[in-house]
Amino acid sequence: MSFVKQLAALTALSLTFASSISSADDLPSWKDGATKQAIVDFVSQVSTEGSRGYVAPTERVAVFDNDGTLWGEHPMYVQLAFALDRVESLTPKHPEWKDVEPFRSVLAGDVAGLAASGEKGLVELVASTHAGMTSDEFAKVAGDWIASAKHPKTGAPYTSMVYQPMLELISYLKENKFEVFIVSGGGIEFMRPWTEEVYGIPPQNVVGSSITSKYEVKDGKPAIVRLPEVDFVDDGPGKPIGIYTHIGKRPIAAFGNSDGDFQMLEWTTSRAGKSFALIVHHDDAEREFAYDRESHFGRLDKGLDEGRKRGWTIVSMKNDWKQIYPDR
Amino acid sequence: MSFVKQLAALTALSLTFASSISSADDLPSWKDGATKQAIVDFVSQVSTEGSRGYVAPTERVAVFDNDGTLWGEHPMYVQLAFALDRVESLTPKHPEWKDVEPFRSVLAGDVAGLAASGEKGLVELVASTHAGMTSDEFAKVAGDWIASAKHPKTGAPYTSMVYQPMLELISYLKENKFEVFIVSGGGIEFMRPWTEEVYGIPPQNVVGSSITSKYEVKDGKPAIVRLPEVDFVDDGPGKPIGIYTHIGKRPIAAFGNSDGDFQMLEWTTSRAGKSFALIVHHDDAEREFAYDRESHFGRLDKGLDEGRKRGWTIVSMKNDWKQIYPDR
Repeated sequence: MSFVKQLAALTALSLTFASSISSADDLPSWKDGATKQAIVDFVSQVSTEGSRGYVAPTERVAVFDNDGTLWGEHPMYVQLAFALDRVESLTPKHPEWKDVEPFRSVLAGDVAGLAASGEKGLVELVASTHAGMTSDEFAKVAGDWIASAKHPKTGAPYTSMVYQPMLELISYLKENKFEVFIVSGGGIEFMRPWTEEVYGIPPQNVVGSSITSKYEVKDGKPAIVRLPEVDFVDDGPGKPIGIYTHIGKRPIAAFGNSDGDFQMLEWTTSRAGKSFALIVHHDDAEREFAYDRESHFGRLDKGLDEGRKRGWTIVSMKNDWKQIYPDR
Repeated sequence: MSFVKQLAALTALSLTFASSISSADDLPSWKDGATKQAIVDFVSQVSTEGSRGYVAPTERVAVFDNDGTLWGEHPMYVQLAFALDRVESLTPKHPEWKDVEPFRSVLAGDVAGLAASGEKGLVELVASTHAGMTSDEFAKVAGDWIASAKHPKTGAPYTSMVYQPMLELISYLKENKFEVFIVSGGGIEFMRPWTEEVYGIPPQNVVGSSITSKYEVKDGKPAIVRLPEVDFVDDGPGKPIGIYTHIGKRPIAAFGNSDGDFQMLEWTTSRAGKSFALIVHHDDAEREFAYDRESHFGRLDKGLDEGRKRGWTIVSMKNDWKQIYPDR
């Protein structure tokens, strides 16, 4: 054997070894049982050449919702907490807000009034507090906030309240040559400054809701200026559209937690060939939160009934996860 | 030295060796000279750790225009040829087209009339001939057409009339850990079925103009339906916006050929730190086409003057390229 061939053989050997231990050990925070087994079975089938369910690496696209799937969304969406903080700091420049919903409710601390303004109100709130500055300025505002803001219940940084089992799942999929995307109802530019560091998912693999922006050159200096106008809502039936526009491939695996993810899971599992859909059910009041059919944020109703009927994997946070958050 | 360290050292050695020969040999269709040297110098600087211009691999984003930059755009945009063929085959279902521009001109073979309808006419033509079907159906229509259509001058498939020097450039950048994207005025879904095979650029790395689409479930079968309405024009000032939306990072290198690429190159080169902009100048009437300031398709006027002033690299197809198309 030539030296080069020997080197190649040794490298191949070490890779094979790495991959055979990975299926057993890459999901240490998942309890052994049907849920973990369903994940491992699916990944093994699609990534084993010669298997009936084999899928070429270029087609191994996995999509994850963010709020409630990769990190918490209670007592409110993290981005909403960001928007509320922004309203407070921007109010001196917007005296008219005190009479206009949803700002009136925000300033009055009237959570019910804010909730009553519905998705439209939330989207308007986001558009207004996220616009009127350049792309670079917004990335800094969002990045600075996420670096310092704390969860109201635990006092911990939001980025430390991501779900350890889901981090392991992302790594496990990547090791098995999946390309992993976030497809979130949250603002695309709110997520991008930190997803690479926190989840190992780079900005170009983040799909989300967006506001309109325009290119402008002022005094010879080009900028992208964010406008107070919603461009795209990446939620519900918007998720397959966001996937179509940004990724251009139908995923083979989709991970969500609320009815806003329903169409994404439906679209994924209606492909010809092997596919996988998973719903995280928040049933762990002690270690996290317990909510589903009646929740304002992350309502899971249709998905709970239909998901079971369709053979989607329903994760019980309480029973399937050994650990919720990463070790500090 | 332990065995593992030895293996690592040998691997590092072989990688170093591969990279030092690549700068000399990876652009064989580029003539030696200032243009090739500018490319190699830039790539070496940004990818050499410790160099003053070093850029981390995660920030090494390169964006390429498609029409006129990676493949031909004369005598007309390839996608326009596709649209004209579609008008002919769809006309029986649209009797009203014979009185409405730009369809009237198309059906009358009136190129001047079509050109007079401007970008708006072209966009309408594209929207109308590319909509009214599902995403899967359109991918098939576009894929089938590109597999069989022939260039009117050479009789060769369009996908064989891509520029060999640019294919080498894409590979060279990828070897040096750039992530390469197409950012084209062309339709995103027209390109995606074939960019991976032809350029080695996967669908998720293709940014382009798009029409609106919606998610629909009919008889339990989900589909993405394409609507006859322009959603986004990825041209001129739209290109930095398309980059912002799809990639979420500012590129460090941009490659174009027309004034429609101007803002993309301007946005790229206004970043803090090292950047590179290149314009392909079509000055080779013998081997390809010669056009610039007066051309209907791929007009290059401002870019030619301003590009030189700003230190962008202007490629003469005639003088800088040994070969235009790949060997058959």
